[in-house]
Amino acid sequence: MARKKKSARPKARLPKGFRDISAAEIAATRAMLDTVRGVYAAHGFAELETPFIEYADALGKFLPDEDRPNEGVFSFQDEDEQWLSLRYDLTAPLARHVAANYDRLPKPYRSMRAGWVFRNEKPGPGRFRQFMQCDADTVGTASPLADAEVCMMAAEAFEALGIARGDYVLKVNNRKILDGVLEGIGQADEAARLTILRAIDKLDRLGPEAVRALLGEGRLDESGDFTKGAGLDEAQIKHVMAFVEAGLEGGARADILARLEKLVGGSERGREGVAELAEMAAFLDAAGYGAERIAFDPSVVRGLDYYTGPVFEAELTFHVEDEDGNRVRFGSVGGGGRYDDLVARFTGQKVPATGFSVGVSRLYAALEYLKKLRAPAQGAPVVVLVMDRERVADYWRMVEELRSDGIAAEMYMGTSGLKAQMKYADKRGAPIAVIEGEDERQQGIVQLKDLIEGRRKAAAIASRQEWVEQRPAQVAVPRGELVARVREMLERQRNTTGADG
Amino acid sequence: MARKKKSARPKARLPKGFRDISAAEIAATRAMLDTVRGVYAAHGFAELETPFIEYADALGKFLPDEDRPNEGVFSFQDEDEQWLSLRYDLTAPLARHVAANYDRLPKPYRSMRAGWVFRNEKPGPGRFRQFMQCDADTVGTASPLADAEVCMMAAEAFEALGIARGDYVLKVNNRKILDGVLEGIGQADEAARLTILRAIDKLDRLGPEAVRALLGEGRLDESGDFTKGAGLDEAQIKHVMAFVEAGLEGGARADILARLEKLVGGSERGREGVAELAEMAAFLDAAGYGAERIAFDPSVVRGLDYYTGPVFEAELTFHVEDEDGNRVRFGSVGGGGRYDDLVARFTGQKVPATGFSVGVSRLYAALEYLKKLRAPAQGAPVVVLVMDRERVADYWRMVEELRSDGIAAEMYMGTSGLKAQMKYADKRGAPIAVIEGEDERQQGIVQLKDLIEGRRKAAAIASRQEWVEQRPAQVAVPRGELVARVREMLERQRNTTGADG
Repeated sequence: MARKKKSARPKARLPKGFRDISAAEIAATRAMLDTVRGVYAAHGFAELETPFIEYADALGKFLPDEDRPNEGVFSFQDEDEQWLSLRYDLTAPLARHVAANYDRLPKPYRSMRAGWVFRNEKPGPGRFRQFMQCDADTVGTASPLADAEVCMMAAEAFEALGIARGDYVLKVNNRKILDGVLEGIGQADEAARLTILRAIDKLDRLGPEAVRALLGEGRLDESGDFTKGAGLDEAQIKHVMAFVEAGLEGGARADILARLEKLVGGSERGREGVAELAEMAAFLDAAGYGAERIAFDPSVVRGLDYYTGPVFEAELTFHVEDEDGNRVRFGSVGGGGRYDDLVARFTGQKVPATGFSVGVSRLYAALEYLKKLRAPAQGAPVVVLVMDRERVADYWRMVEELRSDGIAAEMYMGTSGLKAQMKYADKRGAPIAVIEGEDERQQGIVQLKDLIEGRRKAAAIASRQEWVEQRPAQVAVPRGELVARVREMLERQRNTTGADG
Repeated sequence: MARKKKSARPKARLPKGFRDISAAEIAATRAMLDTVRGVYAAHGFAELETPFIEYADALGKFLPDEDRPNEGVFSFQDEDEQWLSLRYDLTAPLARHVAANYDRLPKPYRSMRAGWVFRNEKPGPGRFRQFMQCDADTVGTASPLADAEVCMMAAEAFEALGIARGDYVLKVNNRKILDGVLEGIGQADEAARLTILRAIDKLDRLGPEAVRALLGEGRLDESGDFTKGAGLDEAQIKHVMAFVEAGLEGGARADILARLEKLVGGSERGREGVAELAEMAAFLDAAGYGAERIAFDPSVVRGLDYYTGPVFEAELTFHVEDEDGNRVRFGSVGGGGRYDDLVARFTGQKVPATGFSVGVSRLYAALEYLKKLRAPAQGAPVVVLVMDRERVADYWRMVEELRSDGIAAEMYMGTSGLKAQMKYADKRGAPIAVIEGEDERQQGIVQLKDLIEGRRKAAAIASRQEWVEQRPAQVAVPRGELVARVREMLERQRNTTGADG
């Protein structure tokens, strides 16, 4: 490798919005995804994995972020100058997959996908440019039962993960109803519709007054930025807000449907939307999913452009403290909806589809807060110290004996002395250090140092003198009993730790 | 969504070198990685996950591909015009991670990482631009024991996956020995060294004559392209080839070491390399890893630029047919080596490191060939047909009963008739279709159609008449016994399929 001058040295840093992930989080995320996948597989959804890179035109541009020129997607040119993009969700690639393999796929086609997606957006606290989603989709049927099913399945997955009934709610709406409402106020223009949609999408975050402003002239936010509004007049705003607030107090699905039916008036599209929700409601009732699990809420519109019918938002309803110490609802951990036109983008042939996407990192944060993460027991290894470099083969034999018995173990691989080796074992969080110096070897024994007990006692011991006298948590055992005595010590640690908390 | 004109429709296709992955391959890959991770975890290697995107300068450019201007890496500019790259391996990001977190990490730092990497190279048959690696590394020790350990661990992982001893070999060399040989012939120039290294790297693929040519004037390949050589003279070539071929006939590690010792002559760096291999050999001997598992082979140099000492190549030695029907060795499924300068790129402080990387897709192909892939049993779901759309709640109840008993099941979610539904169940590979029409309902029964038995019988039945009379593999069972009888049928299928093949 070419030697570089000091000034040419790169900095060891990550771009903003990206992060390294620790062993504990990897293991807990894997356990979490296994649970979700188990639920989805039981429902007959088969796994599919699409690549991270696709042609930019195949993914399309459906992201709500308008602040940046490349609209939220990482893109680059291939050597033949075609534009490639990193996938920004798992829905657009699914549409490409279905369009490319249409004839050989069973219809409906039911798949689940889990993986990283990328957004070239402004990173912020807890907002990353690489994050994980886990999706389930039914492609090839317009039936509202398929919409209901993915919602029920998401609810089942949440409960399988340990989120109590009542601590989550799937909120369901239908874009067609909003279209009907807009028809009723004489606003069928595509661009205005999107502005209105995004204004409504901000209800949760900004409250009704801000939404009113965004539906009208526009809004000046706290930082002094002005966001242009949709330009509706007072009567129009009132009608749209009546729709948005039709479900705010909650209530039975049938009651909300009755209110919505009035609001869409004579609009055919609006009536279609209400009818679809009614069919979902009947099915959900029959399947025993009440409004405490799957509720209708007209304020849910979802930011993504490609939804055409029912839209879903999964919200965790328990309260946490935000950065400013305020008690707030935990909020959204996923969503989805019906996207009947995505496959038709390629084929011209309409292929109705619906799906639900879990935001894995958000869900992880929720389970962490609820203390429901299941990390496998695999901890740090037992460390066998190297007291005499001439005898590494003997130390290695100890390690092999332990591993043969299913105990994770390693020999210290560095070249430092005893003190550094103990520090190493401690920093690793190793449960036990195994020590065999010349004295021990001659006596046919090894020392087992209980590092967990040792840490506890160390806190209570006042002086070095006392430490040396007590030699806390260290026992000499016959070399031939190494494995049995290590196992004993590990079990005692497990029980003690368990009892302590 | 904006309606587009027909001419504007994107094509549903993937860029070359990328592919979709099926449920079976996802499940088998997961099982394979679980096994490898299990072995590595038992050795005390903790998981780490780094992001897919890093600053280009943090990753550096160490790829052997010189054919393309961006040297094999997918890169793009961030909004602040800094260059970002998709990771091309899992070693460069590890070096960045260690440099960024040096103080808080235990030394040595032992980690494993598994994930997709990306190469902007020319795709070919079986050569993808997105592929998976699984790495284990020990950072922070110069001890050759650490090199030996990752090799032993790789061997253990191969055997845990079902690859028989004798069907694989870890081939080990040391770059310092080559440096010593080059010193001996008066060639210490960095650029010439790389050309020589890459010439030797082609021995396996092109044979010794081609390597001789590439060490000398250069080589005209079959396509008529001329590759410029390293420009060595006859005596120099002879000396380098003696080194390359010093281990070709195989043999005990001690014998090869003796030959190498002669070849490096008085070169200090060369002697250092031989001494490191000797220390590895002593440890491997003591640990019971003979040359049939871990051999010394001076022809192994590895293409990557960043290796500084021992290099490893894992080869599967059994034979398969290549595309032209020739019997060839299966070949490499991974490799690695020591890269003592990678962390120093950032910090200026030398942090010795070594690691081994499994090529997951190659290993997958090998296990597939050896019939050693372990795919979990989870198959396609039982499909409950919808004979009467008014009664979906009843069909859904059947599905729920089956799932409550741990049987994957789904209700047909489309809107087509019986024939299309049967075709659907068949295309999905469903084991059983459950049918309850009006007649069945009145009699309190359901029909279970054994689709696996049905497919077998169908092959033997001549006419439609015969088919209708025999109603192959269909039984009527009481509605109350649905779950028990489905389970029975599934078990019978499992046993029959097992017996057949």
